[in-house]
Amino acid sequence: MKEKEIIEFIKKNIKIKNKDVFTGIGDDTAVIKYKKDEYFLITVDSIVENVHFTTEKATYYQIGKKAIAVNLSDIASMGGIPLYAVISAGIPEGKEKIIKQLLNGFKFMAEKYRFDIVGGNLTKSNALFIDVCIVGKVEKKYLKLRSGAKPGELIYTTGTLGASQIKKHLNIKPRIEEGRFLVKNFPVSSMIDISDGLSSDLITLAKESKVGFKIFLDKIPVSSEAKKISKTEKEAIFHALNDGEDYELVFTVPEKFRNKIPEKINSTKITYIGEITKKIQYTGIYRKEKIKITPSGYDHFF
Amino acid sequence: MKEKEIIEFIKKNIKIKNKDVFTGIGDDTAVIKYKKDEYFLITVDSIVENVHFTTEKATYYQIGKKAIAVNLSDIASMGGIPLYAVISAGIPEGKEKIIKQLLNGFKFMAEKYRFDIVGGNLTKSNALFIDVCIVGKVEKKYLKLRSGAKPGELIYTTGTLGASQIKKHLNIKPRIEEGRFLVKNFPVSSMIDISDGLSSDLITLAKESKVGFKIFLDKIPVSSEAKKISKTEKEAIFHALNDGEDYELVFTVPEKFRNKIPEKINSTKITYIGEITKKIQYTGIYRKEKIKITPSGYDHFF
Repeated sequence: MKEKEIIEFIKKNIKIKNKDVFTGIGDDTAVIKYKKDEYFLITVDSIVENVHFTTEKATYYQIGKKAIAVNLSDIASMGGIPLYAVISAGIPEGKEKIIKQLLNGFKFMAEKYRFDIVGGNLTKSNALFIDVCIVGKVEKKYLKLRSGAKPGELIYTTGTLGASQIKKHLNIKPRIEEGRFLVKNFPVSSMIDISDGLSSDLITLAKESKVGFKIFLDKIPVSSEAKKISKTEKEAIFHALNDGEDYELVFTVPEKFRNKIPEKINSTKITYIGEITKKIQYTGIYRKEKIKITPSGYDHFF
Repeated sequence: MKEKEIIEFIKKNIKIKNKDVFTGIGDDTAVIKYKKDEYFLITVDSIVENVHFTTEKATYYQIGKKAIAVNLSDIASMGGIPLYAVISAGIPEGKEKIIKQLLNGFKFMAEKYRFDIVGGNLTKSNALFIDVCIVGKVEKKYLKLRSGAKPGELIYTTGTLGASQIKKHLNIKPRIEEGRFLVKNFPVSSMIDISDGLSSDLITLAKESKVGFKIFLDKIPVSSEAKKISKTEKEAIFHALNDGEDYELVFTVPEKFRNKIPEKINSTKITYIGEITKKIQYTGIYRKEKIKITPSGYDHFF
């Protein structure tokens, strides 16, 4: 049973009653009616020792930063900004000293991304885990869902992809600013963040939008880490396509904006990688080869 | 380092910037300005295998209910009602079958206490944990903090206390309705829920209110479980005083309401147990004996 199957099961079994819930389970965050022209966003994500990090390779400061970053990335993918965080940590007995280091990681992110840590909870746990819930907001006109992509639209990604496990996953830069720039300046039709891998997450977006896509594999911006660990160009591309935890934004815009999307937002690359199709097929094009894209990204679950 | 010391450390180190935050870390929930006459409440709490439950003694359905209940109790203690929950679960590999049972527990609580589960997250974890964040609301006029108790006021508790670990902690009845009845009908001046134990939590309330208290130990409503496991009346009382996880409400009202607080709300007992004092001493009175009350409740942490 994969996480996505479980979420499907939950969506079928959990019925939303409150009319203020605009979107419940199934997008990057829940979307709740708030003010006349604004929504609240609520998201939760946890990181667990030996699943999302090891204490041999990561400092507790980095672990603290990562726990926050993965949630901010969800807020970014909705076009929103973070407001409040509550943090729950399970700490192995006798390891209370790490709390200050984790806290420095939380603080760094709260200052950099301008939100407040308003609550927390500590408990003993054999395995170190940190669970973060972030409440954010977005203007109604700027809300982006996974479900808005339309045939003929262009697909873009921020940053570079692949082999995040080597280094980048401990220094994630949630694309809040890039997301805000995009939603304020372009009619972005759908957006998702890459947590499981470009292939998995783009398929999720396509399914929610009831469309297909073709991506030009040689256009995918491959990270220098992915290039380093690969023997061939193709191998590097497949790292970029399938590795998880990039925490970049993938988004779609109408075709007429082809030459209007900037190549960079601040110092973050923005790259055209493919197109949305009416036919529900997920196709990768590598030179003249056509490849069927499957959701082979990383599954943190079973 | 106890949880409360850590929270003190965090309160000193985390500065709130957003003016909409009415109360950050330090009460049962965070309190956020929302509408003109309403606040948002945000709370987070997790339960962990072998700390808050064992899978030998609890069913997954009960574990699911408990994970929700401990958070609802925090909402109740602010005088509020729950609106939305997001749930994060860490599940041991190969145990995905338990998810449906946990979910049935979540669903039961969502239906009974009328809130929506709007998001979730699943991850692998060696130790089973469930972390729940609940967003609720309370009318400004009904908001209750820990810090409002004044000398001369009366102290009451809901329900019966002690030995919750035997049975009750797996069938917690969060006092949402009782809390609402109290805040709507009486000028409750402070309120807290008993999670660590009456002694610990009443001292927390007293410290936040900058007051002391005396409690009449023989007035404490002792649970039948606490009586069963005790050889003497005094032993039973000390279970009621110090055991954790009662999830009852302790509250204070002005002296003139002495005969106006009902003995029951629905079927829940309401019991007068003591008085707030100006002198910052925490005193228990047992017959003619005076006992210094110390925070000897259960600490889920170190």
